[in-house]
Amino acid sequence: MMIVIEVRDQHDGDTRARPHTGSDVRARMVQAAATLIGARGVSATSFTDVIEASGAPRGSIYHYFAGGKRQLVAEAIEWTSEQVQAHQRGCDATTTSGVIEHFVDLWRQIVTSSGAHAGCPLAALASDPYADEPQLAAAVERGFEAWTALLTDQLGSAGMSGSDALAIATTTVAAMEGALILCRARGNVAPLDAIATQLHQLVTAGT
Amino acid sequence: MMIVIEVRDQHDGDTRARPHTGSDVRARMVQAAATLIGARGVSATSFTDVIEASGAPRGSIYHYFAGGKRQLVAEAIEWTSEQVQAHQRGCDATTTSGVIEHFVDLWRQIVTSSGAHAGCPLAALASDPYADEPQLAAAVERGFEAWTALLTDQLGSAGMSGSDALAIATTTVAAMEGALILCRARGNVAPLDAIATQLHQLVTAGT
Repeated sequence: MMIVIEVRDQHDGDTRARPHTGSDVRARMVQAAATLIGARGVSATSFTDVIEASGAPRGSIYHYFAGGKRQLVAEAIEWTSEQVQAHQRGCDATTTSGVIEHFVDLWRQIVTSSGAHAGCPLAALASDPYADEPQLAAAVERGFEAWTALLTDQLGSAGMSGSDALAIATTTVAAMEGALILCRARGNVAPLDAIATQLHQLVTAGT
Repeated sequence: MMIVIEVRDQHDGDTRARPHTGSDVRARMVQAAATLIGARGVSATSFTDVIEASGAPRGSIYHYFAGGKRQLVAEAIEWTSEQVQAHQRGCDATTTSGVIEHFVDLWRQIVTSSGAHAGCPLAALASDPYADEPQLAAAVERGFEAWTALLTDQLGSAGMSGSDALAIATTTVAAMEGALILCRARGNVAPLDAIATQLHQLVTAGT
């Protein structure tokens, strides 16, 4: 998700011309898949789309992803999950509102950098027939759980009681997923900004 | 969305055997399309799926929907939007928390009646390539705006100030959209229940 700009920059900058290692290509394909799945859904994202968006050589898919589309989708989900966690682990706020603001900032960045077009690959998979694949459904569940657990821990460290922290963490994750949808529908970041003020109210009241 | 049970009941009860009017068939097709689009997305929902789920005679699609899939999808979006508004217009609560609870109850019912499998057709369309169709994107935007405006009015009538009411209404719609996603990923209604407690906190603090 975060990588929307990066992928586009690489594309615009014609990185295809410079030499790159296999792991570069592989990583770019996973990132491009995550961006496309978030924006269009799993069913509507083809290998061809991923090849084009990542600038990877044709034939790369089965070279790097022997498990085919399922494997690429699973890695895109796991990569997204990890990107969000990495961002949030970088939070050095000592207040509950600081913790929430750090998380919200990531989603605001996703909306604004994509012109309100980006979506979340985890949400996209949850509402796709591919969610019938137990391995993929489990990856989505693990991702949401990891984000919620991390926020719960951070809110706890900032002084919030355990049960409040879990409920507020869950609400924050849900509100950001919903915000992404409303921002896409509206074509701007206004819904997310309104929601951010309310999450701020919530944590301020709760501590 | 609400109609998940109804569609299934009709199906299980073999309504195909009883005579029905053209408008019955047409309405069932729109409802089935809404349920399928919410659960699987627009791209992965075929006419054949809609025919099977609604029990409509083959050939009904172009008979009733001369505009093809686009028309059926547009009507499914509008029907969903109207169902949610109809439910919420039935709210006779005089407190802000009563207004929010009435809205949340609809979404809880959607989650529980579908075994946490239902999704929202508006959210599904927002993250589908079909969102590139201006008419469909506009229908989604109108739907979210209508829900938000109705909640804002009801919160206002229950005594909340205008700007707070709009921000809380936006947050409630986003939180329910996010809740549906988290409930699908978890396979149960627990995330929605946690979120409901926080929305309750929010409106209680706000009035």
